[in-house]
Amino acid sequence: MTPFKLTDELIAEINLLIAENNAGALLDMMSDLHYADIAEIVHELDDVEAVYLIKLLDSETTSDVLAELDEDVRETILRKLSAKEIADELLELDTDDAADIIGELPKERVSEIISQIEDREHARDIVDLLRYDEGTAGSLMAKELVKVNENWSVLTCVKEMRAQAENVRRVHSIYVVDDEDKLKGRLSLKDLLTTSTRTAIKDVYIPKVDYVSVNDEAEEVEKIMSKYDLEAIPVIDELGRLVGRITIDDIVDFIKDEAEKDYQLAAGITQDVEADDSIWELTKARLPWLLIGMLGGLGAASIIGGFQDVLTQYQALVLFIPLIQATAGNVGVQSSAIVVQGLANDTIKGELWGRLLKEGLLGLVNGLAIALIVLLISHFAFGTTYFESATICVALVSVVIIAALIGTFIPIFLDKRGIDPAVATGPFITTSNDVFGILIYFLIAKMILGF
Amino acid sequence: MTPFKLTDELIAEINLLIAENNAGALLDMMSDLHYADIAEIVHELDDVEAVYLIKLLDSETTSDVLAELDEDVRETILRKLSAKEIADELLELDTDDAADIIGELPKERVSEIISQIEDREHARDIVDLLRYDEGTAGSLMAKELVKVNENWSVLTCVKEMRAQAENVRRVHSIYVVDDEDKLKGRLSLKDLLTTSTRTAIKDVYIPKVDYVSVNDEAEEVEKIMSKYDLEAIPVIDELGRLVGRITIDDIVDFIKDEAEKDYQLAAGITQDVEADDSIWELTKARLPWLLIGMLGGLGAASIIGGFQDVLTQYQALVLFIPLIQATAGNVGVQSSAIVVQGLANDTIKGELWGRLLKEGLLGLVNGLAIALIVLLISHFAFGTTYFESATICVALVSVVIIAALIGTFIPIFLDKRGIDPAVATGPFITTSNDVFGILIYFLIAKMILGF
Repeated sequence: MTPFKLTDELIAEINLLIAENNAGALLDMMSDLHYADIAEIVHELDDVEAVYLIKLLDSETTSDVLAELDEDVRETILRKLSAKEIADELLELDTDDAADIIGELPKERVSEIISQIEDREHARDIVDLLRYDEGTAGSLMAKELVKVNENWSVLTCVKEMRAQAENVRRVHSIYVVDDEDKLKGRLSLKDLLTTSTRTAIKDVYIPKVDYVSVNDEAEEVEKIMSKYDLEAIPVIDELGRLVGRITIDDIVDFIKDEAEKDYQLAAGITQDVEADDSIWELTKARLPWLLIGMLGGLGAASIIGGFQDVLTQYQALVLFIPLIQATAGNVGVQSSAIVVQGLANDTIKGELWGRLLKEGLLGLVNGLAIALIVLLISHFAFGTTYFESATICVALVSVVIIAALIGTFIPIFLDKRGIDPAVATGPFITTSNDVFGILIYFLIAKMILGF
Repeated sequence: MTPFKLTDELIAEINLLIAENNAGALLDMMSDLHYADIAEIVHELDDVEAVYLIKLLDSETTSDVLAELDEDVRETILRKLSAKEIADELLELDTDDAADIIGELPKERVSEIISQIEDREHARDIVDLLRYDEGTAGSLMAKELVKVNENWSVLTCVKEMRAQAENVRRVHSIYVVDDEDKLKGRLSLKDLLTTSTRTAIKDVYIPKVDYVSVNDEAEEVEKIMSKYDLEAIPVIDELGRLVGRITIDDIVDFIKDEAEKDYQLAAGITQDVEADDSIWELTKARLPWLLIGMLGGLGAASIIGGFQDVLTQYQALVLFIPLIQATAGNVGVQSSAIVVQGLANDTIKGELWGRLLKEGLLGLVNGLAIALIVLLISHFAFGTTYFESATICVALVSVVIIAALIGTFIPIFLDKRGIDPAVATGPFITTSNDVFGILIYFLIAKMILGF
């Protein structure tokens, strides 16, 4: 398959066709494209062009394109559509996508749009989904699913399913409920293919079924679905009633978003920014972390200021400030990254003390390796005295060990307090280790060089 | 659902049951558990216990557990099983999982095991999969799929499908091929549910089908499947023949693995290590990056050594070495992380120069903000002279801009050369920026303070 490729030429051609008001040629071009590709194109158009193109497409395509767009682009477009137009688009979408789109709009607008949705059941389902907090299973689920009553015969079941399947894009499992709508089990489509139609549902359904609760955390849902290789999972409410299902494509998006967020946090970037965002957006996401680093740098400056006497007498020590600082920062980031990942994967078990001991040992090994090399180089290349070399090496080993301990302790501590440990990687750890590293360096210098 | 929770008590109980050779109670306990949970338990057992438990389970469960285990644990267990025993396990697995397991073993062992697999077609399929390079679509695919000939009637098709579906864990799509086995299109299960059985395949199949080629990169497959929300994608060979399919659960694993690898690379950790790996494994993954940082630190030491004259006269400049260095490192990591992510998502478009200009501007804004604060603090809290303050501030702004440019340029440069830009984040960027930052600081000091 030749994947769709967005080129400057293609965009130029579309710009031209829009300028010429050549609806026919545009529709021709779009009819060959997947809605995800059209969404990519819309991202490259200006507001007026985007609305022109969106209004040109048939309602089903438009709704799918809208669901794919980035929030900010979608907001601009929705502002130019009437409540009735938006209501018609929502009708074409699955309830989860519809709820995501409408959830971003101002409250009065939402009521206006909801009141215009023709299919009242669909409208009720969307309103129902708006109740759930972001980051819960309820906020990820869709109301579309295929369910059958355990008291039905397979024949009734197949008939009912055919009707229900019309509203469901993809049938994963057929869920079995009792008369009170409580989830009892599932029927697999494969079983359906290979089972005689005369069998009774009660006798064929699989009573073992994985499920999550509306209030479970999205992260928990992701872990269950990945671990057990599920493509869909039913969601029950507080009373055990089947209220929705979450499909793997939503989980794929969730995993990718979370991975991006963690990666950015580790690099000292808050908010979900992209390279193409405005300088103002990027500054908001980056400057706060730089200011943390600045405070650390000023802290280090005061520490060095406090040890002027050492520096005046042993000027060679100045040379190795960057080495101490860089090593402390690097070790801290390594330790914290491993712990943050371990916490995310639930592979951090056992006691805190055992883990700290192990990190300490690891620090000792790495610290000694580095110190040995630095010992030789500092002595022969920089002509430091024995005492100065000793200071640098003892400081290096200590700094590596302490940086490893800090990098291990802080994420675990935050996690226990219910704070996302991912914030404690990157600049945060680097900065605290910079300051501690330099303090340790000069304290050891004072001890060894005898003040 | 109460998710399975691995506790120390549970492991202690299992240890005891194994020691008592209480097979009945163990099997009872395991029968309630999912194979993924049993795999978690096996990871906590010692070799002898693990083999005992594995041999106790029925062949289907054992094979699924084996497929879930970490490579190193699996290797230990496989070494204690005979070729025949392994062959019987492989028979129970899908071809892709079987190929993954057998692919790790020494060549002679592989031939021995393959020759013992009873189902010769299954054996041929596994051997076929071993041919593909890691990281290609061929290495991710399984041979199990449901395919029908375009010349069949729906009746023949349903009959054939029932037979084929027996060998396929999950039926996603029914692929349609011609007499030469070339992929023509697909039938959806939903269509099958809602279409009369008298229709001819030729008249109902959907000729538009996404597919990938055996040699396409896994990353490309991931992008197509996530973008178009596919749960399975057919794979064709060089002649256009349908040879396998890739399912979304394999892609979920791939996405998670890649995200972990990138996160670790950004933190200066190579290889796929976990918090519970040995100190030796962890050292191998971490020390090389610390040595890069060490070289940078020594480089910085030589630079400072070259500016002894400046330092002797303006001692206050020493205080701000950590600040300059920390800021340079933080900015570099931020810039490179954004670029690396943009490259991974294909959102980095347009010219290199435009991007560098934007990063330069962003650096100017952030740099000025930081410099202003430092100007006030250095003057009032540290009593630096006007010229010293000017030096520090001009250096800060320059360092931020240059660090941003380096952080942007290096990943793009590596990407153009075909090198994974993710290696250029973390310690690599921090180190180069440390060195450049300090060099710039002293060069500017020389200029402003007039040497």
